[in-house]
Amino acid sequence: MATAVGFIGLGIMGSRQAANLARAGFELTVFNRTRERAEAWAAEHGGRVADTPADAARDAEVVITMVVDGPQVEALLDEALPAARPGTLFVDMSTIAPADARRLGERVARSGHAFVDAPVTGSAPRAQDGTLTIMCGGAEADVERARPLFEAMGRLVVHAGPIGQGQAVKVLSNAVSATNCATLAQALVVGRREGVDLDALVEVMANGSAASTMLELKARPMLEHDFAPLFKLEHMLKDVRHALDEARAAGAVFPLAALAAELYAVGIGRGLGDEDFAAVVRVAEAINDVSL
Amino acid sequence: MATAVGFIGLGIMGSRQAANLARAGFELTVFNRTRERAEAWAAEHGGRVADTPADAARDAEVVITMVVDGPQVEALLDEALPAARPGTLFVDMSTIAPADARRLGERVARSGHAFVDAPVTGSAPRAQDGTLTIMCGGAEADVERARPLFEAMGRLVVHAGPIGQGQAVKVLSNAVSATNCATLAQALVVGRREGVDLDALVEVMANGSAASTMLELKARPMLEHDFAPLFKLEHMLKDVRHALDEARAAGAVFPLAALAAELYAVGIGRGLGDEDFAAVVRVAEAINDVSL
Repeated sequence: MATAVGFIGLGIMGSRQAANLARAGFELTVFNRTRERAEAWAAEHGGRVADTPADAARDAEVVITMVVDGPQVEALLDEALPAARPGTLFVDMSTIAPADARRLGERVARSGHAFVDAPVTGSAPRAQDGTLTIMCGGAEADVERARPLFEAMGRLVVHAGPIGQGQAVKVLSNAVSATNCATLAQALVVGRREGVDLDALVEVMANGSAASTMLELKARPMLEHDFAPLFKLEHMLKDVRHALDEARAAGAVFPLAALAAELYAVGIGRGLGDEDFAAVVRVAEAINDVSL
Repeated sequence: MATAVGFIGLGIMGSRQAANLARAGFELTVFNRTRERAEAWAAEHGGRVADTPADAARDAEVVITMVVDGPQVEALLDEALPAARPGTLFVDMSTIAPADARRLGERVARSGHAFVDAPVTGSAPRAQDGTLTIMCGGAEADVERARPLFEAMGRLVVHAGPIGQGQAVKVLSNAVSATNCATLAQALVVGRREGVDLDALVEVMANGSAASTMLELKARPMLEHDFAPLFKLEHMLKDVRHALDEARAAGAVFPLAALAAELYAVGIGRGLGDEDFAAVVRVAEAINDVSL
């Protein structure tokens, strides 16, 4: 019989991930705070709409949460844990602080269930295609239990260590992205002040050792001041701060990311929080009193 | 008739660049401080061996210098300029400080000649294949005069602005590479302290927005502590410092590169100057008291 899955959180990402699970033959019970979204989803993809998080968890072997932050995950677990059958596997795919994931993992264990943290990277189109990157933390056996579900939603699935390490890898990776992006922003602004041809600079960087995905994705938006949000600056800053908190707790310093975080934080002070994080170039422009 | 070219400096890069010019049909007169290298080169590729830099410049329409640093370029120009025919084009393809390139350009102009700075990126195999990246600074007409030669040596030729801007683009691009590399080093070391699986971390970064050429080229050497020099740490630091000097002179601050420079400089103090610049990971390890 198909594995019964409770899926909680049918937002932009979650609705697409759940659809891939349904297509792969999992038996879904879905829950969403705004019930209309769940009804619409079930009309399209089948499955049952749950009345409450507890209802979504009651008959599930695996419960997936895909919501906005740690407090939301915790509130859902408050409701779902008492209803779940013993040994249910809770998989949180939201992006939350690694320390929160560990705390929630302990709580799920105390309730007699299992927990895996499994945040994703990749935007809506990759959620749609089932080609997300999924990085997970948890016991080997629990990750293996979740793997068939992960493989229906993602292309790359990596097990990074015990509970919390999926989140740790995600925020560390995002800290590198954010720092590479801030470095690029500063190089463009410095180049402008020096009067070099910025198209030439970008072309040279793209064809040499300075190349990066950030250069590929963000150089043009920076030069054109197009900050329509693909990933908001305030959300990127949140991830970098999680990465710095984790590093600190492990007794490690990440000075380049700490400096980058400061620049993004200045961006918040300049009202750029809802813009794409490429808007960190505005901070570099302000510091150097020049516009791209 | 084929353009007569004086080529000065037949080192690892220069000998391969000159060979591509000879293959493309330019008429070469070559000079090298160690004459045996020039004799061996001419035996293989044809052309005439000059006795002195002046001899290499005397009948040339274009004189190319490809040596180690600014003082060497200056010493060669001291000898070559008086012998050159009026209007000779001097193209310096060495990597030197942008400010030095500007100063030398003025000096060449006072002698009645033209100057283009045209540093390259790409290692010996790309010099061999004629697929270097060449970034040049100079007057449009002078760059156009040099273009047929550049096209015999490089795949990507970009004109970045007036004299000095080829060097400015090169060191700015290298400052981005160095900063991305130091960011990667710190992320790996922080990840080790946190106990995450570093192969998982590298795989996630390589498949997402944290990807970069530095990640591709330097993550493995860092994890394996393989610092056999492809580009020495002290040379990378020199380029980053040139980039910071240029930025300062233009009234601009590049804080992330300044912090990266500090880490590479600590590397010098730890005896890593002759290692590959990936050895900056040793500094990150020392700061965080952990080994990869």
